Amino acid sequence: MNKPPQAPLRLGIAGLGTVGVGVVKIIRQKANILAARSGRPIVITAVCARTRDKDRGVNLNDYAWEDDPVALAKRDDVDVFIELMGGHEGPAKDATEAAIAAGKDVVTANKALLAHHGQALAIAAENADRVIRFEAAVAGGIPVIKALTEGLAGNDITRVMGVMNGTCNYILTRMESAGLPYDTVFQEAADLGYLEADPNLDVGGIDAGHKLAILAAIAFGTEVSFDSVELEGIERITIEDIHQAADMGFKIKLLGVSQITGRGLEQRMSPCLVPDNSPLGQLDGGTNMVVLEGDEVGQIVLRGAGAGMGPTASAVMGDVMDIARGTRLPVFGQPAATLTAARPARSATPAPYYLRLSLEDKPGALAKIATILGETGISIDRMRQYGHDEPSAPVLIVTHKTTRDSLDTALAAIAKTAVTTSAPVALRIETV
Amino acid sequence: MNKPPQAPLRLGIAGLGTVGVGVVKIIRQKANILAARSGRPIVITAVCARTRDKDRGVNLNDYAWEDDPVALAKRDDVDVFIELMGGHEGPAKDATEAAIAAGKDVVTANKALLAHHGQALAIAAENADRVIRFEAAVAGGIPVIKALTEGLAGNDITRVMGVMNGTCNYILTRMESAGLPYDTVFQEAADLGYLEADPNLDVGGIDAGHKLAILAAIAFGTEVSFDSVELEGIERITIEDIHQAADMGFKIKLLGVSQITGRGLEQRMSPCLVPDNSPLGQLDGGTNMVVLEGDEVGQIVLRGAGAGMGPTASAVMGDVMDIARGTRLPVFGQPAATLTAARPARSATPAPYYLRLSLEDKPGALAKIATILGETGISIDRMRQYGHDEPSAPVLIVTHKTTRDSLDTALAAIAKTAVTTSAPVALRIETV
Repeated sequence: MNKPPQAPLRLGIAGLGTVGVGVVKIIRQKANILAARSGRPIVITAVCARTRDKDRGVNLNDYAWEDDPVALAKRDDVDVFIELMGGHEGPAKDATEAAIAAGKDVVTANKALLAHHGQALAIAAENADRVIRFEAAVAGGIPVIKALTEGLAGNDITRVMGVMNGTCNYILTRMESAGLPYDTVFQEAADLGYLEADPNLDVGGIDAGHKLAILAAIAFGTEVSFDSVELEGIERITIEDIHQAADMGFKIKLLGVSQITGRGLEQRMSPCLVPDNSPLGQLDGGTNMVVLEGDEVGQIVLRGAGAGMGPTASAVMGDVMDIARGTRLPVFGQPAATLTAARPARSATPAPYYLRLSLEDKPGALAKIATILGETGISIDRMRQYGHDEPSAPVLIVTHKTTRDSLDTALAAIAKTAVTTSAPVALRIETV
Repeated sequence: MNKPPQAPLRLGIAGLGTVGVGVVKIIRQKANILAARSGRPIVITAVCARTRDKDRGVNLNDYAWEDDPVALAKRDDVDVFIELMGGHEGPAKDATEAAIAAGKDVVTANKALLAHHGQALAIAAENADRVIRFEAAVAGGIPVIKALTEGLAGNDITRVMGVMNGTCNYILTRMESAGLPYDTVFQEAADLGYLEADPNLDVGGIDAGHKLAILAAIAFGTEVSFDSVELEGIERITIEDIHQAADMGFKIKLLGVSQITGRGLEQRMSPCLVPDNSPLGQLDGGTNMVVLEGDEVGQIVLRGAGAGMGPTASAVMGDVMDIARGTRLPVFGQPAATLTAARPARSATPAPYYLRLSLEDKPGALAKIATILGETGISIDRMRQYGHDEPSAPVLIVTHKTTRDSLDTALAAIAKTAVTTSAPVALRIETV
């Protein structure tokens, strides 16, 4: 507005990997438009990373260097501490806490930190009248935190869903398009640098689970509760599962779903079958999609790049610009002290399930399975036995709608029969 | 945050149609969560509409009544003037100007007002240190203004696109699914109350053009320039066009596209062919979709309900909550005084075109058309003459990529030959 020029907003950036370098580039290249939009200059005063002597393709000479992120977080010439190191313990946590204690606002891309310590950090920040912003922590460049916390603030949120791990989606998409087995594509993804140092964070669903827990806290006004996310990774998905799903008009996606009911907070992150002509089914490669449902707005679908230098740096800059413009919100959209403790509940919403079992190739094995399912009240929509070149016979079953509890009862009974040669794969079929 | 309770934010609502009643309902039903999220009570102090004695299904007894929206806008007990009357002249404009002059913030759903007077209103508001917010003016419940202005504030925006008139999309979708002609479905839409009082606002592309002009101003830092939007409505789309497009794997959508190039600002709102398996192609009924492209973030796609009580009231409430939380931005994301005058340019991006011509059923007519296209440098991808039960012969031509200028040259030459019995239909084929 027509005010006298304001003081620059001074950033200290901890972590100069892909995202950190992306943020530095934007601030160097777009100084004029950023100042025009925020009403004040945005400047970097200090940076920090593990290794100083490394060509990162960007000029860092104008900025003070710190070896220690905690020292960076406390600097008098830093207004906003930008945490791009990652990891939910150690330097990222120490420096974030130090920044808040020193009266700095915080912008972070660290989903693990928020999933594990979000409530404590939010309480600390709000007691100190500071903000923590984290658009880059969920779904990369998609402004989903903003949409949920601000745009839909007039809604009771009824459900959030999303495909939010680009690496898993890449692996599943690539398996289908190239007809390659999981192990081969997993190795490709590793060679391409798509996997976290601990790949279980990706393929085990943990990273996506972190993101779901953060969205659920905002959506339902509950304390972040990552520990109660029902997690299931994609490691056991075979190329046969993908082909069988495709034959029935479905794709397999690592899908997160959270909703709150009278029974409590449901959060699950698991591979599911979704219709291949649905928006989720058509999501290929590293793209993310988040679905937000509110009692007033209905269903909002957001799609975009879930990772990468530009998209993630774009999200960090959205937060920086908000702080520069004076936007100040509670961390999770309402004061952390007013968030209720999450009461976890297993999903009771019935759904059809895809089951793949490996049966001993002996007479009566299939009959035992069918009997158990019938006794558990699970009716079979279709069943197919295929392939016989192995000692065990793979059997595909699609059930009519049933609850996860009924299914687990049946699977436990099946395990006791000893007619299966390996643990069954059970995938929920979502028709959203 | 942990502050002493703040003073209530007091709203004056002008216009008690569907959206106004929706806003009243949300504020009455969700008082607690709105206060928790914004840190202060949100209350209505006064309302205004054309008719007082009318059962709107909501209790208005707690609120002062004004017959005159200008009087409402000036009331001492109103902090935020909510303009839900519509129309770009008359009461909506007068009351909005009065509200700003009286030191009120403004929330409006009025795309026509902003498309015609956005720059002057923004200057007035920013001189008075007031905000005007208008999430509900574009794409209903989708928080696209917020995404573009705030979430993507670190980007140079390269292109915005959208299907933003649900009524047109309903008509086009329904024509295809029911196989009905335009006039029949237009009447259905009128009977269902989907059409504006002046239906040309919808089917002529004007309403969608208003929205595109608003998005372009934010995206490109240019003054709103509705007059330079190239507008084309859906009135001339026939069921045959839809069938022909479907045969080739396309759907017809009223699509807006805006981008800025060295030549200037391109804004066009016109029926286009889009691939039927693309996100835009799969958009059915009243749903809206907006595509935002930034140099950092890549492509972000947002989908949701474009109209209706809940979605539009949700967008209004997002703006109200932002004001309650103290968020204050320039109207178009940067101060209105710094927006540059738009230099309109016709789109020079080549594209294939779909042409439908009605030719006199005489020898040589088709040869004349083909000759003219060839002489204009337009090569033909495919051509089909179909149906002969009428005095004129419909001819379908799909061109290879050409510019709109070349096409217009050819169409002008074709008009001079007098072998056509009615004006040709020319639809751009977008492969986005």
